Amino acid sequence: MPTSMTEAFRELAMANRIVANEGVLDAFGHVSMRHPDNPKRYFLSRSRAPELVEPSDLIEYDLDSRPVRDAGATQYSERVIHGEIYKARPDVMSVCHHHAPAFMPLIATGADYLPVFHLGAVGGIRPPYWDQHDEFGDTNMLLIKPEEGASLARALGAHNLVLMRRHGVTAVGTSVRDCVFRCIFSARNAEFQARAMAIGTIASLSRGEAELSGKISTSTTGLTRSWEYWSVRLGRAGLMIPEARVVRPGQRAAAKASARGAHKAPLRKMARRR
Amino acid sequence: MPTSMTEAFRELAMANRIVANEGVLDAFGHVSMRHPDNPKRYFLSRSRAPELVEPSDLIEYDLDSRPVRDAGATQYSERVIHGEIYKARPDVMSVCHHHAPAFMPLIATGADYLPVFHLGAVGGIRPPYWDQHDEFGDTNMLLIKPEEGASLARALGAHNLVLMRRHGVTAVGTSVRDCVFRCIFSARNAEFQARAMAIGTIASLSRGEAELSGKISTSTTGLTRSWEYWSVRLGRAGLMIPEARVVRPGQRAAAKASARGAHKAPLRKMARRR
Amino acid sequence: MPTSMTEAFRELAMANRIVANEGVLDAFGHVSMRHPDNPKRYFLSRSRAPELVEPSDLIEYDLDSRPVRDAGATQYSERVIHGEIYKARPDVMSVCHHHAPAFMPLIATGADYLPVFHLGAVGGIRPPYWDQHDEFGDTNMLLIKPEEGASLARALGAHNLVLMRRHGVTAVGTSVRDCVFRCIFSARNAEFQARAMAIGTIASLSRGEAELSGKISTSTTGLTRSWEYWSVRLGRAGLMIPEARVVRPGQRAAAKASARGAHKAPLRKMARRR
Amino acid sequence: MPTSMTEAFRELAMANRIVANEGVLDAFGHVSMRHPDNPKRYFLSRSRAPELVEPSDLIEYDLDSRPVRDAGATQYSERVIHGEIYKARPDVMSVCHHHAPAFMPLIATGADYLPVFHLGAVGGIRPPYWDQHDEFGDTNMLLIKPEEGASLARALGAHNLVLMRRHGVTAVGTSVRDCVFRCIFSARNAEFQARAMAIGTIASLSRGEAELSGKISTSTTGLTRSWEYWSVRLGRAGLMIPEARVVRPGQRAAAKASARGAHKAPLRKMARRR
Repeated sequence: MPTSMTEAFRELAMANRIVANEGVLDAFGHVSMRHPDNPKRYFLSRSRAPELVEPSDLIEYDLDSRPVRDAGATQYSERVIHGEIYKARPDVMSVCHHHAPAFMPLIATGADYLPVFHLGAVGGIRPPYWDQHDEFGDTNMLLIKPEEGASLARALGAHNLVLMRRHGVTAVGTSVRDCVFRCIFSARNAEFQARAMAIGTIASLSRGEAELSGKISTSTTGLTRSWEYWSVRLGRAGLMIPEARVVRPGQRAAAKASARGAHKAPLRKMARRR
Repeated sequence: MPTSMTEAFRELAMANRIVANEGVLDAFGHVSMRHPDNPKRYFLSRSRAPELVEPSDLIEYDLDSRPVRDAGATQYSERVIHGEIYKARPDVMSVCHHHAPAFMPLIATGADYLPVFHLGAVGGIRPPYWDQHDEFGDTNMLLIKPEEGASLARALGAHNLVLMRRHGVTAVGTSVRDCVFRCIFSARNAEFQARAMAIGTIASLSRGEAELSGKISTSTTGLTRSWEYWSVRLGRAGLMIPEARVVRPGQRAAAKASARGAHKAPLRKMARRR
Repeated sequence: MPTSMTEAFRELAMANRIVANEGVLDAFGHVSMRHPDNPKRYFLSRSRAPELVEPSDLIEYDLDSRPVRDAGATQYSERVIHGEIYKARPDVMSVCHHHAPAFMPLIATGADYLPVFHLGAVGGIRPPYWDQHDEFGDTNMLLIKPEEGASLARALGAHNLVLMRRHGVTAVGTSVRDCVFRCIFSARNAEFQARAMAIGTIASLSRGEAELSGKISTSTTGLTRSWEYWSVRLGRAGLMIPEARVVRPGQRAAAKASARGAHKAPLRKMARRR
Repeated sequence: MPTSMTEAFRELAMANRIVANEGVLDAFGHVSMRHPDNPKRYFLSRSRAPELVEPSDLIEYDLDSRPVRDAGATQYSERVIHGEIYKARPDVMSVCHHHAPAFMPLIATGADYLPVFHLGAVGGIRPPYWDQHDEFGDTNMLLIKPEEGASLARALGAHNLVLMRRHGVTAVGTSVRDCVFRCIFSARNAEFQARAMAIGTIASLSRGEAELSGKISTSTTGLTRSWEYWSVRLGRAGLMIPEARVVRPGQRAAAKASARGAHKAPLRKMARRR
């Protein structure tokens, strides 16, 4: 886990690239993280394909999804998804919105997501669906207004995944890595499920199995092992972000190497967690 | 957007490669652009797999799909698709004909294309089908005669996509990038749709949603973001075309760097648009 | 087209690699060619994954599939497929046997192959099926005995493709490139067909359309264009075979650069065709 | 076949990478081998994505899946799968546990595995299913307790493959290469079978055909040919493990180059087999 803001920014940029490199994101979609020291702030890239995100692309937002200072760049139009979920769910430290091909057969038919193997339990059993049309009628399907984000956050409720009809998916996590793990393995499960539905009747994990298995991503060594794996694959694809040079307390890296406008103060929570 | 013919030729060659690199084209298929300064002309590569197209492969055609000067190379047999659409549709600045694998389940069964997520709206709702056999009986399925191209253009009408039974797809755009975006995201949608149809009943965007969403490719930052993404992926695949050296007005690059027989006069429309 | 045996051997090795690199062959399967100057001989690699075949791996066989001289290497067990077809079909100059994943849904269910787009016409309409069990009962499914190869050749008849139940496919061509084109585009068609069958009722090309379209691979520029494309892709995958150095008549390359035991005499037919 | 422990360790690390590189394993799953000289011991990597396993990651276990000496690293939680199978099946020299995407449609619906082509015979006809819930009720689906491993081994019985409901697959082999071959070609077969089931009724090899074909992986040249192929592909993916330097008897490589705690004594069985 990151122990400085520099590392945290690199991890968030890596997360965007990893989720893209594993086939969940393409030109669209984004992963954000809550400010580790200030729960009323979050970081999200400027408008850019997630596979290309650099630490220096990150913008700091308040929970109303307004940049804390001049963003100096084009912003994602759907950032209210992130801000409104961070408002509604204090336990959430990372959010990812995507249109993973693996999920589309479910999204397009309204089929319930069901964990068909233990790793799919990170998506829960029958996570809720949300339909923008129900509350907002005909739109361009983008969540741009705060009330659209808030409506999605209400649908998400206490779940970790919300499926968006005719659109995509939003997933949350207790950390960036937890969120990445959930995105990738729920997409794998969705793919297995759709292919299985084409040939027979699927069996879901029992509720008990899903609850026990769902903790895998945070309580076992799987998270470490998979992050190493995805990082090496990122490197093989020529997408690795070099580690920032080691910085000692009081010698923080220059602003360029961190996000635009990130606090320069030493980490509190993150340092404590170390 | 390109501001010189040199840049425009590079953009068109890149477009051919990008649409191939993203899995829409293979050994066959082609992207053309209307001459930005002369609506009665268009540019299309000599007969070559689109992934390999160089700016120097481009040939200038009149709207009857005759090369303006000696082509000096083998030409695509289906170029009337391009010429006849440019004739019929003054608003169209770019045309792509392809046999994307993603579309084939629809093409082979005659199923209507329906946007199952917002980005699929670039293909419209139920774009028309065209069947060469209806008007021309048994053929080798290639559109070689002007009347075959004209028949297809009539079927296309005011739509942006026309599906060709037992053959493929033709898409149009208001710019090269708009056309590329339409090809790639309509193919993604077709894939999602076919996989969804294998497991249930699909829901389409409403007409209102499709109209509002369909403008995404031209009116938001999505076009810029996706072009950057696809270009970087092209580079990673070793397929990037290096930028031509900067040329000042009056110092146009040598003919080699531009298309065969392209006008050497300064750009009018394109320059004005800058 | 090759104009020397050195070039012909390189083309055959390239053909094996191309068909593998395009996803038709894997660790198994093989492409052969008839000796251009001696219709009673053919060339086939020693037992090796096709993606790795070198010109120096080629062995010269008589039509009873016996090596003309000491093979000096492990041989494919199924070479009678090639020999028996060359015996039965004087027009055939190249044979490929494969287990393409794209064909497997048809092979496993016994569904007829139907051309669902013009390029699929290279496989014909409803090419014959052959079942080794019909004539030979329980076997290990490999065609090892001459009579097994002869039985397959009878089933092939005058067709260009024969489907083998619970096994794979054998395709033929009037040249190595024609055979490669048939393998790749019939596999594409089979994939489109299977995916289409999962969502609806497929439409086939009419018999007239199939006949006219089926000539595409030999009578248009498509063959040249696709060979260049597949070769470049081979190069990008790091699998290209360097061109042998130019040899003038009377200065034939050393035996190493050609197949084991190939005739050193100047080409007759091939030279004439130039 | 390896003739020294150094080579055997390299082969096992390669096996993990090959099975991953061919799409059977991802961040999870593992291949083990029984100690060639001591049937009461086996080797398995420390907890790490299989694509990244180095010879130096291997840990020596007794059949109760306890490390023979201080492991000095995080261990796989499911190692009892390996230990309990080695206990129950003296003929088994290698075990692989995986969640191959290709198998998931079967695993999720409970459909029987059937060989739909000769190479699929390595999985047998209708290998047994095991359901952890039957004996152990709600669990996190991981096999952690010895009795869970023993239960799986009982279900496996004399078969070479056991399917695990809502989880994955475990396969065994008479050598590391035999196990790798079984994993890869049974996964190919499962993929073909699932895609075939979506469009029709599948035909299985007869019992006689399956028995005769099932020996292909050990009795023909196929094993050598496919191992060379997969190794070269590993190299192309940048994942090759360099051959250890040649060591003469009495000059064994340093401990670093071999597994942690491997016996330094000269090989007995392996040497004899040479």
